[in-house]
Amino acid sequence: MSFQALFYPRGVAVTGSVTAGKLGHVLMNRLIEGGFTNIYAVNPKAQGMGPIPGFASIREIDGAVDLVVIASPAATVKDVLTDAGEAGVKAAVVITSGFSEAGNAAGEEEVKQAARRFGIRFIGPNCAGLVNTHSSLLATLEARPPKGNTALVSQSGAVGGALMSWAEEQGLGISKFVSYGNGSDLNEIELLRYFKDDAETSVIALYVENVKNGREFMQVLKEVTRIKPVVVIKSGRTNTGQRAALSHTGSMAGSDAVYDAALRECGALRVETLEDMFDLCKGFSFLPPVEGRRLVVVTNSGGPGVMSIDKADEIGLDAGEPSSELKKALQEFLPPHAGLKNPIDLTVEGTGEGYRRSLAESLKEYDAAVALYIGTPYLEAMPVAQGIVDAARESQKPVVSVLQVGCDVAESDNLLKQHHLPNFSTGERAVRVISRMAEYQGLKSRPGYFSDLPPIKGNLPGQGPVLEPDAMALLKENGIPVPPYRFAGDRHQAVEACQSLGYPVVMKVVSPQILHKSDFGGVVLNIADDEGAGKAFDHLRQIALDRDFRGVVIYPMLKGGREVILGLTRDVQFGPVVAFGLGGIYTEVLKDIVLRVAPVDRTGAEEMIRSIRTYPILKGTRGQEPADLDALAETIVNFSRLPFLYPDIAEADLNPVFVFPQGVFVGDVRLLRK
Amino acid sequence: MSFQALFYPRGVAVTGSVTAGKLGHVLMNRLIEGGFTNIYAVNPKAQGMGPIPGFASIREIDGAVDLVVIASPAATVKDVLTDAGEAGVKAAVVITSGFSEAGNAAGEEEVKQAARRFGIRFIGPNCAGLVNTHSSLLATLEARPPKGNTALVSQSGAVGGALMSWAEEQGLGISKFVSYGNGSDLNEIELLRYFKDDAETSVIALYVENVKNGREFMQVLKEVTRIKPVVVIKSGRTNTGQRAALSHTGSMAGSDAVYDAALRECGALRVETLEDMFDLCKGFSFLPPVEGRRLVVVTNSGGPGVMSIDKADEIGLDAGEPSSELKKALQEFLPPHAGLKNPIDLTVEGTGEGYRRSLAESLKEYDAAVALYIGTPYLEAMPVAQGIVDAARESQKPVVSVLQVGCDVAESDNLLKQHHLPNFSTGERAVRVISRMAEYQGLKSRPGYFSDLPPIKGNLPGQGPVLEPDAMALLKENGIPVPPYRFAGDRHQAVEACQSLGYPVVMKVVSPQILHKSDFGGVVLNIADDEGAGKAFDHLRQIALDRDFRGVVIYPMLKGGREVILGLTRDVQFGPVVAFGLGGIYTEVLKDIVLRVAPVDRTGAEEMIRSIRTYPILKGTRGQEPADLDALAETIVNFSRLPFLYPDIAEADLNPVFVFPQGVFVGDVRLLRK
Repeated sequence: MSFQALFYPRGVAVTGSVTAGKLGHVLMNRLIEGGFTNIYAVNPKAQGMGPIPGFASIREIDGAVDLVVIASPAATVKDVLTDAGEAGVKAAVVITSGFSEAGNAAGEEEVKQAARRFGIRFIGPNCAGLVNTHSSLLATLEARPPKGNTALVSQSGAVGGALMSWAEEQGLGISKFVSYGNGSDLNEIELLRYFKDDAETSVIALYVENVKNGREFMQVLKEVTRIKPVVVIKSGRTNTGQRAALSHTGSMAGSDAVYDAALRECGALRVETLEDMFDLCKGFSFLPPVEGRRLVVVTNSGGPGVMSIDKADEIGLDAGEPSSELKKALQEFLPPHAGLKNPIDLTVEGTGEGYRRSLAESLKEYDAAVALYIGTPYLEAMPVAQGIVDAARESQKPVVSVLQVGCDVAESDNLLKQHHLPNFSTGERAVRVISRMAEYQGLKSRPGYFSDLPPIKGNLPGQGPVLEPDAMALLKENGIPVPPYRFAGDRHQAVEACQSLGYPVVMKVVSPQILHKSDFGGVVLNIADDEGAGKAFDHLRQIALDRDFRGVVIYPMLKGGREVILGLTRDVQFGPVVAFGLGGIYTEVLKDIVLRVAPVDRTGAEEMIRSIRTYPILKGTRGQEPADLDALAETIVNFSRLPFLYPDIAEADLNPVFVFPQGVFVGDVRLLRK
Repeated sequence: MSFQALFYPRGVAVTGSVTAGKLGHVLMNRLIEGGFTNIYAVNPKAQGMGPIPGFASIREIDGAVDLVVIASPAATVKDVLTDAGEAGVKAAVVITSGFSEAGNAAGEEEVKQAARRFGIRFIGPNCAGLVNTHSSLLATLEARPPKGNTALVSQSGAVGGALMSWAEEQGLGISKFVSYGNGSDLNEIELLRYFKDDAETSVIALYVENVKNGREFMQVLKEVTRIKPVVVIKSGRTNTGQRAALSHTGSMAGSDAVYDAALRECGALRVETLEDMFDLCKGFSFLPPVEGRRLVVVTNSGGPGVMSIDKADEIGLDAGEPSSELKKALQEFLPPHAGLKNPIDLTVEGTGEGYRRSLAESLKEYDAAVALYIGTPYLEAMPVAQGIVDAARESQKPVVSVLQVGCDVAESDNLLKQHHLPNFSTGERAVRVISRMAEYQGLKSRPGYFSDLPPIKGNLPGQGPVLEPDAMALLKENGIPVPPYRFAGDRHQAVEACQSLGYPVVMKVVSPQILHKSDFGGVVLNIADDEGAGKAFDHLRQIALDRDFRGVVIYPMLKGGREVILGLTRDVQFGPVVAFGLGGIYTEVLKDIVLRVAPVDRTGAEEMIRSIRTYPILKGTRGQEPADLDALAETIVNFSRLPFLYPDIAEADLNPVFVFPQGVFVGDVRLLRK
C-alpha cells in the first residue's frame, strides 16, 4: 500500500545536503518540528544532523523506511529511487526541481522509470512536499497547519503554503496536505481517489491549474463529491480564451468555461479566491449539512443584519419573514422593540439567553442560522457565544457565527472554536458559505452525469466537407428532427421538388466548395411558385458556376419558432463538449450559452435548457405558448451522442434550431470532419 | 462655528448617571481613555467621577464648554439643551434614544426646537456618538480607532463600531467618526459638506440606510467627490422592491436601483461589504491616484499571481504583457527561468532587490502594481518589504502589497505600514482596490450630472387620462420625434387621413376609457387600402361602443427599427427618474434597463445608451447598420425634461421607441397625470 507508506511511514529518509540553508537541512528541521521521530539523513558523506543519524545509502539504514524525501540534485534522483527501491521503500516525495518544468522531460521520464521498476509511488518532482497532521509528518517546506479534517491538494506549493499559514488564525484544521508539483506519477486523480476514502478527511480543498485527463478527473470527482465536498480553485481563468470572439458556435467552448461546466457537473464547488476556499472549507469542516435554503439571521444590530439579508437575497437563499407562530414565540421572551422580521434584531440589549432562544426557536422553521454579534466596548460577548453554542447543540442545525471585532471577541471566538462552530469576519461571508453548502446538498444527490459512452457507429458520409443533404440525413437517422427536404440535381427536379413540398419553400446551393452559403448568396428564401423555383435554381447554379455544383436542397419555409443553437466541439482536456444557447443576434451579444461535457442525458439536457438567462423566452412569457422543451431536450441528448457515434466529427453546428410549441426542426447544419 | 464646537470643543459636559454600568459612566470613561481633559459631569446630584468634577447644571461649570454629550433620559434632553444653550454651548451629541425611532416624534421635535432656539447643532438622538482622533475626542460607545485620514460617517452606530474595531488590525486610520442616528439635525448631507473641506480627512466612508433629501444629497455628494473619494455602503438593497416584477416601464425604477444610479452619477463608489469598504479606504488613504488601468503583478509564486491576473481581467483592468523593451530590461537582472509575462514571476528565488527593480522598471509603463509575496518558513520577507517600499518611493506610482502569511510577515507588514503602503490579504482584493481607484479618477473628472432644472411650462393637456393624439403633440412640441399621424373623428375623416398618410397604416382607438389599447383589440395593423381603413374604423368604433369613443389616431406602419423603451417615474427620495432599455420581449426577460435621475444631459444620455448589455445591438453587430444613437440620445435628454416642464406628470412610458439608422420615432406613448 503506497499511500500508507506515503502518509504513515514507519521511517523517513531525507536525501540532500545537511548544510544549513540547504533544502535537505530545512526539510529535516521541519520533520523534527512536526514531531516525527524515525528520520534518517542520506548523503554521500553519511552526515547526520542533530538527533538524525546519517547514512551514505538508504540500504544501509537499520530501521524500517517506507518513505524517501528527495531534496538532492536532479541528476541524483533516479539513483536515489533505485537505492530506495532496493531498500524496499514504497513511496517518495521528490522536492527537487529541474525536470519537465525546466525543459528536462527526459530526466523526468528516467525518474518515472526508476520508480516504476520498484513499484514506488511518488509525488513531484518540483513540489513542496506533503503533510499528514495525523501522523505528525511534516515533509514540506511550507508552514505547519493545525490538525483537522480538511485535506488540501494543491498543484501550486505556494497556494497550499498560504492556505496552511492562515489555517491556524482562521480556525481551520488540515488532515493532509499534498503539493504534487509536476504530477509525474501521483496527481489530482489518484489523490482525490485516496481522499475519498480517507477517514481523517471530511472536506477536500483542491487547487489546480490544469488537469491531464479531463474525463478521468470528472469520473473520480463525481465519485468523491457523492461522499464528501470538494472545493476547487481552478486558476488561469482568463488566459484560456474564454472570452475569445464568439464568431461561431464552435468557438464558444473556451476551455475555462468547459472546466466550469465539468466541475459543476461533477458536483464540485468552484470558488475564485483563497478566502472563499477557506470560508467554505470551514463551513463543511464544522457544520452539519445545510438541508434547505431557508436562512434566518439573528443580530444585535440592524445595519449588519440587513446587509446579511441583502446578500442572502442576492444569492438566492430564502430569507423570508418568520411565520406568525414563530413571531408569537419570539415575542414571548424578546423585548417589545426587538425586530421580528428577518433579521431577528435583538437590539443592543440582546443577551446570551436571547440569542439562544431566538436561534433555537427560529431553527424549528429555518434550515440554517447566522448569528451576528457586533461587539462594543461596553457589551460582553462571552454570554452570547455561549448562547450560540447552546442553540447549535439544541437544534442540531447549522449555526454560523459572526462575532464582529470588539473587546472580548478573542475569548468568545475561542469558545466557539472549542465547540467546533465556525466564526466568520462578516455576515455576508457567512451567508455565502450557507448558500454553497445548501448547493452541495443538491448536487450530491443528483443523478449521474453520464453513463456509458455511445458505441462507435462509423464514419461521416462521403469525403471532404459533409454536404447539407447528407448531414440532414445523418441527423434524422440519429433522432434529431429535420424538416422535410428534397435534393435536386437539375432545374426540372428542383421545380418538381418544390411542388411536392408545397410553397413557400427555401432553396440552398449544395457544393463542397461553398460552406458559408448565406455569405455567398447561396440561400433563396420565400419561393412562392414554380416560376420563382426555376429562377432560384438558375441563380444558385450561376453563383456556383466555377465551383463544384452538386445541386440544391429544398425545404418548406419554417416560421414562428423560437431560434436556438446547438454546437459541438472537442476540448483538449475534456473531449466532446456540447453548447446550447438562444439563437440569432442575441447569441453573440448576450453570450447566453451553456456548455456541458458530452454526452448529456435527459436530466442534463433539461438543466442546460433551464440554465440560460433567456430561458423565460423558451418557457413562454407574456402569454406566449411554451416552446416544446421535451423535444428540445431530446434533441440535445441525441446531438450530444454524435461525436461518439462518429468519431471523425471535429465540430458540429446546428444553427438555427427552430423550437415550436409542438416539435423542433433543425434549420441549418454544419458538420466538420476531423 | 458649530462644527468647530462639535469636533474641537474646549470643554465637554456629559449628562447622565455616573453610576458604573450606566451610559454616562461609560461615556466619561471613554472620554478619559481618549485623552481629553476638560470633561465635566452634569447630573441632578452634581456627582463627579474620578478626576471629573460634577455639576448640577451646565451653567454652573467654571470652564469653557462647547459640547454637551447627552446620555440622560429622553424626557430630560430638551431641558439639558436649554440649560446648555443658556450656558453658551454650541454643539450637542444626543446619545439618548426613545424618540422618533420609538414612535416619539413629538419628543424629537421638542428637542429640535430647544436646540434651534439657541443655535445648537447636534447629532442624534439615538446615536453612538462621535470621535475626533485629531483632538483626542472619544465621545462614543464604540471602539477607539487609530488616528488617520479616513472620515467615517455612519447612520448605524454598530457598523461604524465594527469598522473602527477593525481599523487597528487592518492598518487604517480614522480622522473623525460620526454616528448620526436619527439625523434629526445634522445628517449625511451636512456632514459630507463638512468633510469635503476638512483638512484632516482625505477619504470619506459613508454607511447609509436611507437619505432624506435625495436631490440635496446628490448635489453635495457630487461636490465632495470632485475633491475626495466617498466610499458608500447603502444597505437594504433587496427590501426595496428592486426585483419587483417588471410589468411595465414605470415599475422598473425600484428604489435601490435608483440609489445605485444616483451614487454612480455623483461619482461615489458603492461597495457591498465592510471588507470592501475597508480595502478601498485603505487604498485611497495611502496610495497616490491610480491614473490608468494598466496593472502589473510582480510575484514570487505562479499560482497566486495568475489568480490576481484572472481577477484583473475579469473586472476590466488591462493586465497585458510587458512591452519587449520592458522584458529586455527585466531579463538583464532576473534569473532565466523568471516569468516575464504578466505576472512577472520572480519564482521562489525572488529577492528584495529583484522586487525593487522589477516593480520600478514595470511602473515605467504600467499605471499601478501589485506586489505579491508568498512567504514560506525558509524565506525572509523583510528584504522584500524593503524592496517594495523603495520601488514605491522611486516610482511615485501606486504599489499595493500582498504579503501572504508566513513567518516574519508581521514585521514586514509593520515596515509597510510605517511607509504608508497598504497590505492586503489576497491579490484579488488588492486588484479590486486598484480597479476602483482607477474608476474614481474617471468619475472625478466627469462633467456635472445635471445643470439647472428646466422651468415649469404648464399642465398636461385636458383632464383625466391624456389621449394619445394629445400626448403625441406634447412630445413633438418638446423635441421628441413622433411619426406623422392624423386624428379622425368619423369614418370619412379616417379614410381620408389614411390616404393622406399613404398606405400601409396602423389605426388605434382613442378613448379616455381605453388605456391598454392592445389588450382591448384597439389597434389595427397593416391597413392596406381604403376598404381596410373603413373596416378598421368600424371595428374600433364597435369595441368602444359603450365607452367614451373620441375617434381614431392613424400612423404609417413603421418597420425595421430597433425597439427601445423609455420610462419616467417619480422616486420617493430622488424625484423624477428616467429608465432606458432595449424593448420587446427582452426587456422583461433580461431586465437590461439603466436608470438615471432626471434630467439627464447629453453626456448622461450617451452613458445610458452605452451601459446596457445589449448596446451592441444598437451599435450594430454582424454588419448591421448602426442605429441613430445621436437622435436617441437627444430623445432621452428631451424626455427626461418632461417631468420638470409638466410637474403634473406622474409617469410616462414611450414603448416602443423605434430607432432607425437615421432618426427615431416614438411608437406608442402613455402619460399619467398625478
